[in-house]
Amino acid sequence: MRPSGRAADEMRAISIETGFTKHAEGSVLIGFGDTKVLVTASIEERVPPFLRGKGEGWVTAEYSMLPRATHTRGSREAAKGKQSGRTQEIQRLIGRSLRAVTDLKKLGERQITLDCDVIQADGGTRTASISGAWVALRLAVQKLLDSGAIKEDPLTRKVAAISCGIHQGTPVLDLDYIEDSSADADANFVLIEGGHIAEVQATAEGATYDEEGLLRLLRLARMGCTEIFAAQEKAVSR
Amino acid sequence: MRPSGRAADEMRAISIETGFTKHAEGSVLIGFGDTKVLVTASIEERVPPFLRGKGEGWVTAEYSMLPRATHTRGSREAAKGKQSGRTQEIQRLIGRSLRAVTDLKKLGERQITLDCDVIQADGGTRTASISGAWVALRLAVQKLLDSGAIKEDPLTRKVAAISCGIHQGTPVLDLDYIEDSSADADANFVLIEGGHIAEVQATAEGATYDEEGLLRLLRLARMGCTEIFAAQEKAVSR
Amino acid sequence: MRPSGRAADEMRAISIETGFTKHAEGSVLIGFGDTKVLVTASIEERVPPFLRGKGEGWVTAEYSMLPRATHTRGSREAAKGKQSGRTQEIQRLIGRSLRAVTDLKKLGERQITLDCDVIQADGGTRTASISGAWVALRLAVQKLLDSGAIKEDPLTRKVAAISCGIHQGTPVLDLDYIEDSSADADANFVLIEGGHIAEVQATAEGATYDEEGLLRLLRLARMGCTEIFAAQEKAVSR
Amino acid sequence: MRPSGRAADEMRAISIETGFTKHAEGSVLIGFGDTKVLVTASIEERVPPFLRGKGEGWVTAEYSMLPRATHTRGSREAAKGKQSGRTQEIQRLIGRSLRAVTDLKKLGERQITLDCDVIQADGGTRTASISGAWVALRLAVQKLLDSGAIKEDPLTRKVAAISCGIHQGTPVLDLDYIEDSSADADANFVLIEGGHIAEVQATAEGATYDEEGLLRLLRLARMGCTEIFAAQEKAVSR
Amino acid sequence: MRPSGRAADEMRAISIETGFTKHAEGSVLIGFGDTKVLVTASIEERVPPFLRGKGEGWVTAEYSMLPRATHTRGSREAAKGKQSGRTQEIQRLIGRSLRAVTDLKKLGERQITLDCDVIQADGGTRTASISGAWVALRLAVQKLLDSGAIKEDPLTRKVAAISCGIHQGTPVLDLDYIEDSSADADANFVLIEGGHIAEVQATAEGATYDEEGLLRLLRLARMGCTEIFAAQEKAVSR
Amino acid sequence: MRPSGRAADEMRAISIETGFTKHAEGSVLIGFGDTKVLVTASIEERVPPFLRGKGEGWVTAEYSMLPRATHTRGSREAAKGKQSGRTQEIQRLIGRSLRAVTDLKKLGERQITLDCDVIQADGGTRTASISGAWVALRLAVQKLLDSGAIKEDPLTRKVAAISCGIHQGTPVLDLDYIEDSSADADANFVLIEGGHIAEVQATAEGATYDEEGLLRLLRLARMGCTEIFAAQEKAVSR
Repeated sequence: MRPSGRAADEMRAISIETGFTKHAEGSVLIGFGDTKVLVTASIEERVPPFLRGKGEGWVTAEYSMLPRATHTRGSREAAKGKQSGRTQEIQRLIGRSLRAVTDLKKLGERQITLDCDVIQADGGTRTASISGAWVALRLAVQKLLDSGAIKEDPLTRKVAAISCGIHQGTPVLDLDYIEDSSADADANFVLIEGGHIAEVQATAEGATYDEEGLLRLLRLARMGCTEIFAAQEKAVSR
Repeated sequence: MRPSGRAADEMRAISIETGFTKHAEGSVLIGFGDTKVLVTASIEERVPPFLRGKGEGWVTAEYSMLPRATHTRGSREAAKGKQSGRTQEIQRLIGRSLRAVTDLKKLGERQITLDCDVIQADGGTRTASISGAWVALRLAVQKLLDSGAIKEDPLTRKVAAISCGIHQGTPVLDLDYIEDSSADADANFVLIEGGHIAEVQATAEGATYDEEGLLRLLRLARMGCTEIFAAQEKAVSR
Repeated sequence: MRPSGRAADEMRAISIETGFTKHAEGSVLIGFGDTKVLVTASIEERVPPFLRGKGEGWVTAEYSMLPRATHTRGSREAAKGKQSGRTQEIQRLIGRSLRAVTDLKKLGERQITLDCDVIQADGGTRTASISGAWVALRLAVQKLLDSGAIKEDPLTRKVAAISCGIHQGTPVLDLDYIEDSSADADANFVLIEGGHIAEVQATAEGATYDEEGLLRLLRLARMGCTEIFAAQEKAVSR
Repeated sequence: MRPSGRAADEMRAISIETGFTKHAEGSVLIGFGDTKVLVTASIEERVPPFLRGKGEGWVTAEYSMLPRATHTRGSREAAKGKQSGRTQEIQRLIGRSLRAVTDLKKLGERQITLDCDVIQADGGTRTASISGAWVALRLAVQKLLDSGAIKEDPLTRKVAAISCGIHQGTPVLDLDYIEDSSADADANFVLIEGGHIAEVQATAEGATYDEEGLLRLLRLARMGCTEIFAAQEKAVSR
Repeated sequence: MRPSGRAADEMRAISIETGFTKHAEGSVLIGFGDTKVLVTASIEERVPPFLRGKGEGWVTAEYSMLPRATHTRGSREAAKGKQSGRTQEIQRLIGRSLRAVTDLKKLGERQITLDCDVIQADGGTRTASISGAWVALRLAVQKLLDSGAIKEDPLTRKVAAISCGIHQGTPVLDLDYIEDSSADADANFVLIEGGHIAEVQATAEGATYDEEGLLRLLRLARMGCTEIFAAQEKAVSR
Repeated sequence: MRPSGRAADEMRAISIETGFTKHAEGSVLIGFGDTKVLVTASIEERVPPFLRGKGEGWVTAEYSMLPRATHTRGSREAAKGKQSGRTQEIQRLIGRSLRAVTDLKKLGERQITLDCDVIQADGGTRTASISGAWVALRLAVQKLLDSGAIKEDPLTRKVAAISCGIHQGTPVLDLDYIEDSSADADANFVLIEGGHIAEVQATAEGATYDEEGLLRLLRLARMGCTEIFAAQEKAVSR
């Protein structure tokens, strides 16, 4: 029995509110249950130095938790003067995940930055960030297409992410904070619509798992992502 | 004529949504028109080193803008590794303003941190932060009173803040971004319910102003704060 | 009765020694009683990136206290690796104050930096810095005029600053350290010769003040600045 | 055909030289082909703050590349003043991997730090680091057992790591730099002797992969780790 | 012929003004010609962690140049966020030099910090700093003796420093900036009254020198320090 | 009697292994007894800003200790976010020493960086670094000559360094860690083949020394460097 009363393969409610803020080219408040992340996509007509003059674009991400997104207040990274290893690891993952579905040549020599700011945390902030970032990116890319700045759509596939884990011996989908902090194994899957894998990060905590365990988690993840893809589609079709 | 069509002494709509996030002891999303600030109050049972063992508490604030709160994306202070002078100046002002109405002895040896994160900016972010921070602080203090952690209310007066400025020769109330960026003079007033002044910061930009100008701005600010005090009262009475 | 025995509207002795160091284009040791600040003006033939190619100049300031300028040794900001919020707030104020009287177009595409280093502190270091910085800037501008580098004088008005406060219920002029640390309210006024206000920063500490209190402080400040303008005039006329 | 001429399931030569430096409690120079990493294990009789007084130990890791370990000189992180996201991600992975096989209660209230310094890089530096770190840790733990500082062995299982990837459509084992920089997918597996998985990090670059692809990589990794476990055994048995 | 017209073994005028600032336990403005350094000695009743509880004191130094001490403005180390290698090298040298003549046991468990702030630079700032620091330290130690805080004098010998160099083939004493920037070899000697050497730092620039050259520089340095010891004696005898 | 049983004028065994790593243009593992330093020389076709367009090259150095090069683990400078004063002092010394024998005009507009990473420390790490750096630089310069990138040899003289000290009243050569930590005086000499001095850094610790003492140390240093020059010659002749 999961602490939340959910079935093993049951996701939390997914909410996606587009246009949450008005200045960004794409803006989304995504919720996986009580986890709420504000994602904005910002287009800038410049690329990082290593890409200058190559006719290609770049998609990158930054991630942050508001200090009181969590049960106890965490210190603000801007005040400490550096981003933690965890923050950097997550923002690198978000960037890679979105680049896995973006044709950077079709994007042209411009950069889109996805800012993922966690307003409230209850497990799964990185997977909500990736899933919401796709929607924000889609909205921003649409503006480029609508304005004629780009001719061909660089973003033809969806990407989504979900966490799975082994909780008290049972593989479960979409861990919340209580499950996450006591799970035997914790895995984040980044999947691409159509069945391919963009990234797997699976870590044993305490207990380890075997090949069979990994596959069961992957199958749960496929179910979860199917649900997210539907929510993403609905959000961008409005 | 103001760009927004408002009268010279007309505030933007004030919105205060309490309980916007669930973990913090006090949580508020305050809006002054399109300016939206999330303020959380976090209680910690410790005080800064200079107050240890003195039986007194502390109230402090941190302020940040999300990178895409503004028209163009600003760089993230956590990524740059330091807070700007502007950020530090604003968070010092917020802290001082709240301490001006808090009896730190009655608060007991604990600290309340007010995190003001600007979700969307359209001028007046520091004044919305101060006004919202009072509500978040009030909610947190109420929890301490309700739980019996403190006996006497340390927060018996309200504090609010509003900007005024001279725009095309006319003193106007509650500047939005367009007015702010072209104002001849810009002043922020922090006022205490009942008529006293906690802080005045008035800066001439280009043109300067005289004693009469300062007084006209102060009178506008009194009108604005009266409106904010009413909104604060309504928010905490729910 | 003030701790120093001064009358409520009595300034401390003002001393201005020009040419205190030899390399800078302008160099001044200014004293407000026991507060001593060394201000140098340095001309550089370049402007910050946001002004490049616009044909306009820039005036900026940096401020620092020597570690033992004060009663107890403070740690050196260079050793700590960052400037405090107080330092940044003060140097931003100094820069704004000087720009309020400088015609940046007439200055041409060059930058003048005012370095204000507090040798000894006894209250009022920011106001002594601003008042001394005007003299250093005037000397540097004169060199530009004398050499023919600029044709028209970009600095036709004086600016000066003074602190006032409410000490034991009485408004007093030019607070020294003892008064400053126990004042009920503390205000810094930056005034322009001829009667206009460039900046007001008035903060209640403990007690607050009302409109009448603010006006009484402003009138004291006018008296003080008249005296500073005379001392500045004498210093640059030598 | 692989650039190195190796078979798809062929590892590079593994070399493990123990006692490479004399001060550390455990010291190893591990080579996976031309990749050479110096790993030292340092025992300290203190634990991080979050573990104080709990009777448990801690195992952690730090990772660094010497500036000219690579084809072109990289800048020194100590000179830049911060560790890159990549460095932090790798050192967190190494620490987690070693903790997965260490009984922290049996270790007692002390910390063992594994310093992994890459002397020469040719792909697979993180997997060589983990595999070598186990040997260094084993040697340090043996000293604690021999001296009687601990009674029960906290390290009864081996851990090793290897990279696999899809190179020109073929799953291959133990990527060198040339393969790594052109692989379609890149995965690092951390495996525990006996068949369990401690961690999987699999990333698609350009192309993505499916469940079948992931399993084929995992099977190659098992083969590779079997070889590493044998080399580790030989190294600690001398 | 030296640019200044001085004889090869002729020092610049030495000036030592004690009591230049009022808060420090010792305060000196020392001049070697146009080089002017403000040195303050601050007593603190605490020692660095490595000395706690050992009944010994510590003497340390910090060094800084004001930004416009030099011909062109240098950037402020506090603004850059770190001290240069040169600054650190010099402040370590000053600290070592003063500790060479201080009996740290007799000082008792307290620290004296010598802050050396260069007001104006014309070569020899580190040697002026050391020579002035002795005077400031002497004044501070005298306060401890006078107040009875310590019983026995921990500072019974003088220390002074001077630069020498080979300029256009000729060994010369007390290099000014013009000589320093074109010298073939540059040496700083820290000497103890009575004839012993505390430190020699001799560097060839361009040309190198031999044993005979080194001895000739050392003999010049003895002459220079004899003069400085006399000036120090006069300063502390007033 | 020296702790190691060596005669007063006896060096430790010198070992120089060239080609220790494969990517660098020059690579050397140098040992002075148990002190082992890996030095690499990296050629880059760019120069620092102050040399751009002048047709001259630059030689510079970076120095670091691996955390467990020493008896107890030191913290990693990259993790602390800054290089210590000691590190900066040493790397400045290494750079100056190598530049003393390099004709920068003949080198052409390129930079050679000498990275000195201490693998194991037992006293004399800076002198081993300088002595090894010459070999690495020689190998890199030879590649430039062999490829025709430069025509004339910019490095016609050798440079080497050695420490000497006064240990229990006796001047001794090449101090190891035990001697170094208890020496009365400690001196580092950087000498040029043929008899000239590039740099002397002699510091009294506790006791001081006189002219005679300095000369005796210099004579020991000459003997030591003669031995190092021979080992360098042998290393580059292979």
